[in-house]
Amino acid sequence: MQLVTEENITDLAVERWATAHDPRTAELMTALVRHLHAFAREVRLTEAEWMAAIQWLNRTGQISNEKREEFILTSDVLGLSMLVVQMNHQLDPRATPATVLGPFHIEGSPELKYGDDMSQGLPGEPLYLHGVVKDLDGNPVPDAVLDIWQADNEGLYESQHADVDEARLRGKYTTREDGSYCVRTVAPLGYTIPVDGPVGELITKTDISHFRPAHVHFLLNVPGYEPLITHLFQEGADYLDSDVVFGVKEELVVHYERREPGETPDGGTIDQPWFEARYDFVLQPR
Amino acid sequence: MQLVTEENITDLAVERWATAHDPRTAELMTALVRHLHAFAREVRLTEAEWMAAIQWLNRTGQISNEKREEFILTSDVLGLSMLVVQMNHQLDPRATPATVLGPFHIEGSPELKYGDDMSQGLPGEPLYLHGVVKDLDGNPVPDAVLDIWQADNEGLYESQHADVDEARLRGKYTTREDGSYCVRTVAPLGYTIPVDGPVGELITKTDISHFRPAHVHFLLNVPGYEPLITHLFQEGADYLDSDVVFGVKEELVVHYERREPGETPDGGTIDQPWFEARYDFVLQPR
Repeated sequence: MQLVTEENITDLAVERWATAHDPRTAELMTALVRHLHAFAREVRLTEAEWMAAIQWLNRTGQISNEKREEFILTSDVLGLSMLVVQMNHQLDPRATPATVLGPFHIEGSPELKYGDDMSQGLPGEPLYLHGVVKDLDGNPVPDAVLDIWQADNEGLYESQHADVDEARLRGKYTTREDGSYCVRTVAPLGYTIPVDGPVGELITKTDISHFRPAHVHFLLNVPGYEPLITHLFQEGADYLDSDVVFGVKEELVVHYERREPGETPDGGTIDQPWFEARYDFVLQPR
Repeated sequence: MQLVTEENITDLAVERWATAHDPRTAELMTALVRHLHAFAREVRLTEAEWMAAIQWLNRTGQISNEKREEFILTSDVLGLSMLVVQMNHQLDPRATPATVLGPFHIEGSPELKYGDDMSQGLPGEPLYLHGVVKDLDGNPVPDAVLDIWQADNEGLYESQHADVDEARLRGKYTTREDGSYCVRTVAPLGYTIPVDGPVGELITKTDISHFRPAHVHFLLNVPGYEPLITHLFQEGADYLDSDVVFGVKEELVVHYERREPGETPDGGTIDQPWFEARYDFVLQPR
């Protein structure tokens, strides 16, 4: 008969989960058991702490819905999301690096034209973000779709608004023959992650900043190239050194140049001051 | 500026969570980050696997409620619950060993007398479970309360029935001056853990048995002694060697003796065949 002891329980559990029919499932589950047990052994987890963890997990699952992904946020603030991104996108140093997807991407954004305004009158300082999509050798990539989204000036994404029924601060731009793209939007602001839930409970027990620096999200899924999910951050923005989800990389920080009213990069004009930011995306062939 | 890489992300995350104000919280969170990252690195976790895990956690939280504790079940089937029990109850070898609490204990069970029937007419074979509660030196412990609960013959506990409004197969028995107790109930049966949820999804991808061997739960919280949470299993029962929650220990397996109609251990009589099981609980002084 099986005599369970503190010494053999890990081996017994590993032996069982090794019976998973799919070899990768067996690898994942046995490694999970080993690492979970190693954690509990190292900290000598108490029963009260174990129960608090169970209840925390329950609350985290129960606060999550299609508008709020508290487990993704958990993974983000523990640095796990960024670790997984790093491991899965080991790109050429010349390529634009990846960062976290975040929980706010929405499928099916409207298709916009060169220079179109994806902010559609929302408050904020006008920003023209433009440049070229190219390959590792500098050749332009035409017809590349840039799927772009950002938070509004309250730090909220479209999916966080209960009452928004049209696309808000998101759009798909397609590069021209010469690989160029041009987006008009409003300058993004830094914002806090939601701190009224289980992740907030933990963060507020520490000195960790709960803010993210100002950024715009990009997703480029171009045939023949590695998919790229990334952000562009504003140079000099608050929280660049303390991004709560560890998403900042130097290569993704761009300068915003303050411009006077006049001509804009798409050949139009603007009657108020605006920012210009230029960034070339470099894609790695698949 | 912070330049996040695959190499430094763990150190950065550990450094942040080390700022927790309470030293034990800092210890727990930094160890969690290290072990979680070590898991992801060892298996080279893919983005698809990461997302599948996030969705699994969401489903697990969302299926849980006051009648169903899917995260406790997760901890049970991964052997974590039993590891935590072992680490926190390192008792004298003479003492009755502890096992998992399980998710089905209900507070405030009715107080029953020596020999009272806690099955109250529910179907099953009559079982008298009796013995003595004593200390490490064999001295009887009078006035010790045994809080007892078990599943019915469908393998369900009271809290799993939607329509039960009175205590079902549970009760509190108090030892007499000589430390003796006597419980009448019905013989427990083995049962399956719920497999219609996220834990079932995982188990059915393996050869792991999803059954628990027949058992009765005991909780003894006696002043002056270490609290004891344990089960008694039936000798020869199915699944003793494969308990899905790793709860079986040899010392907790008791012999059920088949008896003919006649006198019972409480001095009464019974007109049908019944089982007698005798077990002495040994408590460790605090």
